[in-house]
Formats: sequence, structure tokens, C-alpha cells
Amino acid sequence: MSGHVVALSGGVGGAKLAQGLDLALAADELTIIVNTGDDFRHLGLYISPDIDSVVYALSGRADAVRGWGRREETWTFMAALKELGGADWFRLGDGDLAMHVERSWRMAQGEPLSAVTARFCQALGITAQVLPMSDDAVRTRVLSSEGWLDFQDYFVARQCQPAVREVAFAGAAQAAAQPAALAALARTDLRAIVICPSNPFVSVEPILAVPGMHAAIEAARAPVVAVTPIIGGKAVKGPAAKMMAELGLPVSGAAIAQRYANLIDVFISDERDPLPAAVAGVRIQGAQTLMRSSDDRVALARAVLAAADAVRDA
Amino acid sequence: MSGHVVALSGGVGGAKLAQGLDLALAADELTIIVNTGDDFRHLGLYISPDIDSVVYALSGRADAVRGWGRREETWTFMAALKELGGADWFRLGDGDLAMHVERSWRMAQGEPLSAVTARFCQALGITAQVLPMSDDAVRTRVLSSEGWLDFQDYFVARQCQPAVREVAFAGAAQAAAQPAALAALARTDLRAIVICPSNPFVSVEPILAVPGMHAAIEAARAPVVAVTPIIGGKAVKGPAAKMMAELGLPVSGAAIAQRYANLIDVFISDERDPLPAAVAGVRIQGAQTLMRSSDDRVALARAVLAAADAVRDA
Repeated sequence: MSGHVVALSGGVGGAKLAQGLDLALAADELTIIVNTGDDFRHLGLYISPDIDSVVYALSGRADAVRGWGRREETWTFMAALKELGGADWFRLGDGDLAMHVERSWRMAQGEPLSAVTARFCQALGITAQVLPMSDDAVRTRVLSSEGWLDFQDYFVARQCQPAVREVAFAGAAQAAAQPAALAALARTDLRAIVICPSNPFVSVEPILAVPGMHAAIEAARAPVVAVTPIIGGKAVKGPAAKMMAELGLPVSGAAIAQRYANLIDVFISDERDPLPAAVAGVRIQGAQTLMRSSDDRVALARAVLAAADAVRDA
Repeated sequence: MSGHVVALSGGVGGAKLAQGLDLALAADELTIIVNTGDDFRHLGLYISPDIDSVVYALSGRADAVRGWGRREETWTFMAALKELGGADWFRLGDGDLAMHVERSWRMAQGEPLSAVTARFCQALGITAQVLPMSDDAVRTRVLSSEGWLDFQDYFVARQCQPAVREVAFAGAAQAAAQPAALAALARTDLRAIVICPSNPFVSVEPILAVPGMHAAIEAARAPVVAVTPIIGGKAVKGPAAKMMAELGLPVSGAAIAQRYANLIDVFISDERDPLPAAVAGVRIQGAQTLMRSSDDRVALARAVLAAADAVRDA
């Protein structure tokens, strides 16, 4: 079966499935709408962690061992910055800096984030369409046991230590959804919408908080499939499980399925876990969702597409 | 003999003698007024090549083999930038970038170049006072066979190929001399003013073009000693010799001595060259001016100081 696929993705976990979809699909069949709620300025540079993770994954440049950033990275800049007494709480690899410096410079010339991202994708040979959810600033903030924190202050500087009570997306109400994202969701040949195994609270929901995005997914002519970011009561990476517990939710795929219930047609749980209880209007099925290798990514992508196709054919 | 020494310096050649003076003098005895006419913005970053050369030299971080930039440098950023289709005509090392990023960020917060420079010097253990000639923008421009060029376009992008007809210092007339530089030149305990072996046209004369600087040197109570940047009819590094020829000057120490005649008391020629013909009011003497080692730098610094002391004692 052919047709266009739209994926919603945050950083590392989402980027892995996005890469699987990219490998499983033809060159012009994939659009990835990426969370930009984590974006921030550091040392004057515009940093877009989830866009970068997706770009590194799709271009084969992601570091598999470290789990974030570029492979074959060097760290001379950080060492020199530390010598100068500069802020070293956010680690910037030497190669990674190229993305931040070039993007910041182009944005300072008036180029929107989406255009810079498209430029990078073209330069790196990425054929999928990688779209920031909006070119306007949406900033994820966390109400924690230490008060409101900017996302990177919570995530990197405080290493997710403070307990999370609430998550907000500053600027979301005023942000314009990426026109190309809305256009992709409105395609008549849409085959599937995939919610990647990203943190629901700080990776997927910022995308859904952009006006028009939720409605466009609801109105789309394709099944929506979400993949659990929780395996065996734990997040593969990041604070999703900790956040769920702090927000009073059971730490399980079932709770994620419930959270997405009004939006999705299929929920893919990990095959290691007991199948979550029924959620009205949602098919729940198991798959091997842990993506250790490129083959794992492609296999999960195919399982996701098959699940979507099965809904359509039903 | 003790007393304060003020050096005027451009980049690499000047920085070597500045380092020699720093090693030869006590911790609080040296002020270096550095050319900022080469400063420019690249990829949005504020780059100050001569300040950086002086800081690297004085902190023992200069690369001796390459002849510019930091030692133990890596080049991952440039490789990644090139992959992204970014501008790669100006080479930025990974460690070097720390200086540019941190400085640009601090300047964007309103910190003047002089304060950022002082901060870097303190962080790197430099006890000499390193001062940009002005915190205002002065930009060296070259009228060439290809029309007016910004300095880095001439120097790096065009590799000094176009013939030079004229050099101008845009903004110099409106620039305020660095107050601490004027204060250093006005010290009652001033022992010597040293014009380092830098390119007269694009390294020393931009400093002298800042209003008040020339007069402060003339009014200073210390001998002024200039060291030749020309040895055996050639510049040790850079386009000084080529520029002299293109500007219709003999390529010799003598021509440099003539050019500085109204400002200096002593001209140090290289001992390999025939001693230049007499210049009214200027003592001319030979020394070993090629600085290959740290010992060479200290020896030349001591020769320069001895020459100044001899004038004072005369």
C-alpha cells in the first residue's frame, strides 16, 4: 500500500521511529511534525533539540552509544568554554555547534526555522519533510516543586529532579501551526498519522497545543496510531515515567492510551507488557517497540503502518 | 630597571613580542593595546583576530606550528558546517569558537569588548592588561585592484591577492580611544612604549588612527621603540611586504623606520639586514628579531627594553 504518512515526534525515541518510517517508506512519503517546545537560546544560539535529533537520526548521524547528539563528536569547544568561565551546564558538541551557529545566523537574517530546517535536510540528503510544529515560539514550562521552570532548566540543568505538577506551553495559543504540516494532514492520499513513542507531556502535547493541529488530526482521512513510550513501567529514555507518577497517573501504556483516546485509532503497546485494558474506540495491540537497531526501527515502522492499514481496510 | 611598559600589537608577530615582554616583565608591568580593525562578524559571531592571537600567545595556547589559532585544536565544527552548506572560507577551530561564542553572547548582553577581554584574560591566568584599542567599531578596509574590500575579505577570502592602493579605517574618526590605554600611556612610571613587529598599515596604523592615541604616545614620558616586521626584504608572516611594494615603498626596515619617524625614538632592525640609513631623531640598531622560540621572544623583549632604557639614560 502507498500513501503519505505524517509522524508527530519529539526527540530521541520519536526520532528512532521516524527513522524507521523513513527507511520503510519511499522518498516522498513521509512528513515529520517535530516538537519545538524544548527550543531555547543558549549563549545566544538558537537550539532546537528535537529537530536536531530527528535530523541526526534521518541522516544517519545520530550517536547510538551516547543516545543523543552526533556520532563522531568531539568536545573541544566545551573544554575551551569551561576554561573561559563560560556556562557549561548544557553540553554542546563541536559538530553539533555547526547546526546551532548556522541556524542562529540564518534566523537572524530573517529565515524562519522551517526554512533553515529544510535547508539542512537538503544538505544532509534527507528526503522526508521535517517540519517544526510552528515557526512561532512555543516554550514548554514545568510547574515543579521548585516553581515554574523553563524546560531546559528542568530537563538539563536540574536533570528532571524537581517533581512535576503541571506542564504549560507558553506562546502556544498565539502560535501559527506550520502550514505545510496542516497541508500534509489534509492530504487526500494520507495513509497514516503516527504518534511516535515520545514523552506525551513534553513532546507530543506541545504539538497538539498549537491551534489547529489537534483539529487537523481529527479531521484527517487516515488512521491515527500511537506507539507507547512506556515499556515495563519505565520510559526507555527521559522523564516520562517519573512525570506520569508525579502527575498521579499509573505508569503504564494503558494510561498513555487513555490520554490519547479521543485522538487515536490504534495504540501499540510493547509486547513484553500485558495488553492494556480496552479503551473505547481504540484498537490495542502489542509489538516489539524497543528500538535497539536499525532493523528494529524498520520492523516497528512496518508494524505501525500495518496496523493503520488494517483499520482502513476494516 | 622597573616601570610600566605599553605595547601596540596586531596579531601573530606582534603577539609573539607581547608574549616575550610578558615573560620578561613582572605581572603588573605590561599593557598591550591591540588592533581591532580586523574585527568582524562571521555567522553572527564577533571575531577579534588580533585580540585572540594576543590572548592565545600570553596564555601559552597559541599554535606554534600552524602559526595562528589555538594549539591542540580540532576541526569538527568546520567539517559539520561544510556538510550543512555553511560558509567555510573563514576557518574556525572548535576551541577557538568558545572565544567567539562566549564573547558574542556577552557583547549581546551589553558588555563591551574590553570587559569581555579582561574576563577572558582573568580566566586564562593572563596578568598583563590586554586592551582593545577602542570599544567602538573601527573597520580596516582596503582599496584594491578589485575596489574597496573589507579586511577579512581581502585577507582571508581573497588571500591578499588583490593589489593594495590605499588602506582606510572606517569609524576611526568617531571611535573613542580605550580609556585604560590612554591612562597607561599617561603613567608617570612609564618605561617604554613598544611598537611590536606587526604590519604597519593594517595592524599598527589602525591603533594610531583612533583619536587621541597618536597624541598620547607623543606626550608620553617614555622612549618609543619600534621593531621591524620586515626581515631580508620579506615579512615573516602576512602581506606587509607585498603591501609595501604595492604602495610604492621600498620593502625594507628603513622604509618602516621612515614611516614611524615622527613617533619613535628607536628602530630595531633585524641583525641579518644592513643597518638602515639614518632617520632624523631615530636611533637605529640591530637585533635578532625572528622569534622562533620562547627564548627568542624574551631575548628580543629584553633587547627592546634595553634600547628604551638606553634612550632614557642618555
